[in-house]
Amino acid sequence: MGNTSNDVGSNVTAVTVAELAGLNTLGISLARIDFAPGGINPPHTHPRATEVLTVIEGSLLVGFVTSNPDNRLFTKMLEKGDVFVFPQGLIHFQKNVGYGHALAVAGLNSQNPGVITIANAVFGSNPDIAEDILAKAFQVDIKVVRQIQSKF
Amino acid sequence: MGNTSNDVGSNVTAVTVAELAGLNTLGISLARIDFAPGGINPPHTHPRATEVLTVIEGSLLVGFVTSNPDNRLFTKMLEKGDVFVFPQGLIHFQKNVGYGHALAVAGLNSQNPGVITIANAVFGSNPDIAEDILAKAFQVDIKVVRQIQSKF
Amino acid sequence: MGNTSNDVGSNVTAVTVAELAGLNTLGISLARIDFAPGGINPPHTHPRATEVLTVIEGSLLVGFVTSNPDNRLFTKMLEKGDVFVFPQGLIHFQKNVGYGHALAVAGLNSQNPGVITIANAVFGSNPDIAEDILAKAFQVDIKVVRQIQSKF
Amino acid sequence: MGNTSNDVGSNVTAVTVAELAGLNTLGISLARIDFAPGGINPPHTHPRATEVLTVIEGSLLVGFVTSNPDNRLFTKMLEKGDVFVFPQGLIHFQKNVGYGHALAVAGLNSQNPGVITIANAVFGSNPDIAEDILAKAFQVDIKVVRQIQSKF
Amino acid sequence: MGNTSNDVGSNVTAVTVAELAGLNTLGISLARIDFAPGGINPPHTHPRATEVLTVIEGSLLVGFVTSNPDNRLFTKMLEKGDVFVFPQGLIHFQKNVGYGHALAVAGLNSQNPGVITIANAVFGSNPDIAEDILAKAFQVDIKVVRQIQSKF
Amino acid sequence: MGNTSNDVGSNVTAVTVAELAGLNTLGISLARIDFAPGGINPPHTHPRATEVLTVIEGSLLVGFVTSNPDNRLFTKMLEKGDVFVFPQGLIHFQKNVGYGHALAVAGLNSQNPGVITIANAVFGSNPDIAEDILAKAFQVDIKVVRQIQSKF
Repeated sequence: MGNTSNDVGSNVTAVTVAELAGLNTLGISLARIDFAPGGINPPHTHPRATEVLTVIEGSLLVGFVTSNPDNRLFTKMLEKGDVFVFPQGLIHFQKNVGYGHALAVAGLNSQNPGVITIANAVFGSNPDIAEDILAKAFQVDIKVVRQIQSKF
Repeated sequence: MGNTSNDVGSNVTAVTVAELAGLNTLGISLARIDFAPGGINPPHTHPRATEVLTVIEGSLLVGFVTSNPDNRLFTKMLEKGDVFVFPQGLIHFQKNVGYGHALAVAGLNSQNPGVITIANAVFGSNPDIAEDILAKAFQVDIKVVRQIQSKF
Repeated sequence: MGNTSNDVGSNVTAVTVAELAGLNTLGISLARIDFAPGGINPPHTHPRATEVLTVIEGSLLVGFVTSNPDNRLFTKMLEKGDVFVFPQGLIHFQKNVGYGHALAVAGLNSQNPGVITIANAVFGSNPDIAEDILAKAFQVDIKVVRQIQSKF
Repeated sequence: MGNTSNDVGSNVTAVTVAELAGLNTLGISLARIDFAPGGINPPHTHPRATEVLTVIEGSLLVGFVTSNPDNRLFTKMLEKGDVFVFPQGLIHFQKNVGYGHALAVAGLNSQNPGVITIANAVFGSNPDIAEDILAKAFQVDIKVVRQIQSKF
Repeated sequence: MGNTSNDVGSNVTAVTVAELAGLNTLGISLARIDFAPGGINPPHTHPRATEVLTVIEGSLLVGFVTSNPDNRLFTKMLEKGDVFVFPQGLIHFQKNVGYGHALAVAGLNSQNPGVITIANAVFGSNPDIAEDILAKAFQVDIKVVRQIQSKF
Repeated sequence: MGNTSNDVGSNVTAVTVAELAGLNTLGISLARIDFAPGGINPPHTHPRATEVLTVIEGSLLVGFVTSNPDNRLFTKMLEKGDVFVFPQGLIHFQKNVGYGHALAVAGLNSQNPGVITIANAVFGSNPDIAEDILAKAFQVDIKVVRQIQSKF
């Protein structure tokens, strides 16, 4: 079982071509996602893959946001055995809304899908993105930018 | 010229298959980006394309962040005639760091590249992503989430 | 739940672009597979997709055969939460080897993967493949060919 | 000329990226198929390619079967200079129905198309697929399965 | 048989998605090429396909030229049953060097390969390419350009 | 700046995967094109890419010719900041029609697009294409073929 004792209460164990060379050219990879109660898999994208998520145990609230100009949010409650599709490159997330541990398995249509966790990439890059750029992008004070950057 | 009188001081005029049906199957699209002094094209991704940016006028600071686990930020100062590549699906941005107006042209290797402006998709979706999810994802108080959401 | 009261003791419920038009261009599709005790999903191929299978309930014996000249059989016992990959176009099968009902979910990296059940395509086509061709191909008497054809 | 003194009376000489490294990335490969009188190229699939067959000498009966749920058989008589297309991954075959030797050349739209001879993969894999699975799949007695397996 | 009573002594009968809608998405197309004695299929390219040529009757001299900076010419004499590959987009040609009629069949790995006959596209476009551009490109007098243009 | 002191008055500086290994798999490459007054980038094709051209300085007349059977010529006058698309594999050219130096930047949707300069490939290959083939293809005397070949 993945260790979910962390800030977001979830753990992703991926099997891509980096972990399993035999996946090369097969155009598919896998991930197991464990969730503590209330745990989230925070907003992220896969730059090179569409994802199919299947719930093995527990109840998940899942969602994704479409691209400009609509930025429409689609969400759904999933129970054991339910499946959901996150289109390539769109920002999406899951949350364990049940009382116990939850478990999901994802299939992605690339052997090298990539993962970009939005908060980490935007506020925790190495080095940091200039704070004035983030302040203008998110329409907040530079102090707020610094506060968020300090967490990543 | 694009109208740059807005919160970020930039304007994107895109020519994709939505604007020009003849691009269908050609695997390429274009965008013109105008920048007021100090203007930014805020952090965003193209879910289905790599981008080549060429500076026509002015000076731009550009950057992109790699995917997990490194989240490494690459930046570069570009002058007139310089070109830069933003790999498919990665978060990237530009800022006009010169004294005058700046102009750039982008080529993208899809007729339907898509644009996801991170702040708008995460904090301005319709409807909003649940604030507790964003608070946990960005490790901030729900008050901060609400404050940012109010701007988008 | 899929109705498994049939000759093979399994039932496949597919969600491809034929059932869900929104999958078009997303490059992925899904299938739910129900198994009665002892039920099999008989040898078949997907001409346009690699498959990732995840066990939701029960115990499955799964296998696939590589192409010429080796025709090597790979098999594995899968329990709840286990995943397995069937490379594009290769002949594969699953069998419920547990005491109860079994349930699996498959992701396929095409919105239109296709399914070719070997026995049905070879011995149950409309019209039939000429029996002398099948007799020579399978190195059996024409009587045996006719016997198998009568079942499909 | 290919040696056709074998159980099926045909011989395939392939030129793929395995035989000719220069084909890499070109997306095409070739095969020459020699047929003794009455010889067949038994039911097989190419998991990664569509095939174009051209008759150079003789008369061939050719056919392919569509996928589920129709399993429709398309056949055609081909003479010298005739061409025919076998769609990617579908089961197909050829038979020399003339009095003399026949010769055909195939082009396949992959440098690595793969060949799965159905009888060999299903009844001659190494190790064998469990006989109860094949008995249920082909709706025959286990004795018949063993009989066919003994030939491959 | 194709009518070869023309300036180049050859005739191409193509079967692409334009002639046979069923080829759509199959990624392959065909052409039959008839040659009078001494006839040529003049230098041309297929912008979207690699070609496999098979000689059915007669003797052909075939060749293609690699891209910049080498512009290396590869040629080969082909007899009945021989095959040859022309890589995607490269300029290539065939000549009947036997005493009688020759016949070849080509497979191309696109359902819509396109054909650009160099002389026709460069000197016979509608309208004409400006003669000063062609004179500089081919390093000849404008009179020579006009002379060639008058033939197409 | 590229050195434009040559027969055609232009200079192309390309950045493809051959010059910058990091472009591998990104599906894009770049070229800077310098033009002396009156200089041309002579008719050429990219066998594996569509091209987007952006004018940085000066005035360019650009054009491309469609494939058979129409061979239609499309041309356009471009000024600074204008963009134009040349579809994959089609013959195209540019000419500096302004009084001064001109500069353009091209993006191509392949990391390995290739360049075939028509005159060099047809009349300057190594070794030469047989002169009788070119004479028949371009409908000119062999003397004219030899004259053009002597320049390349």
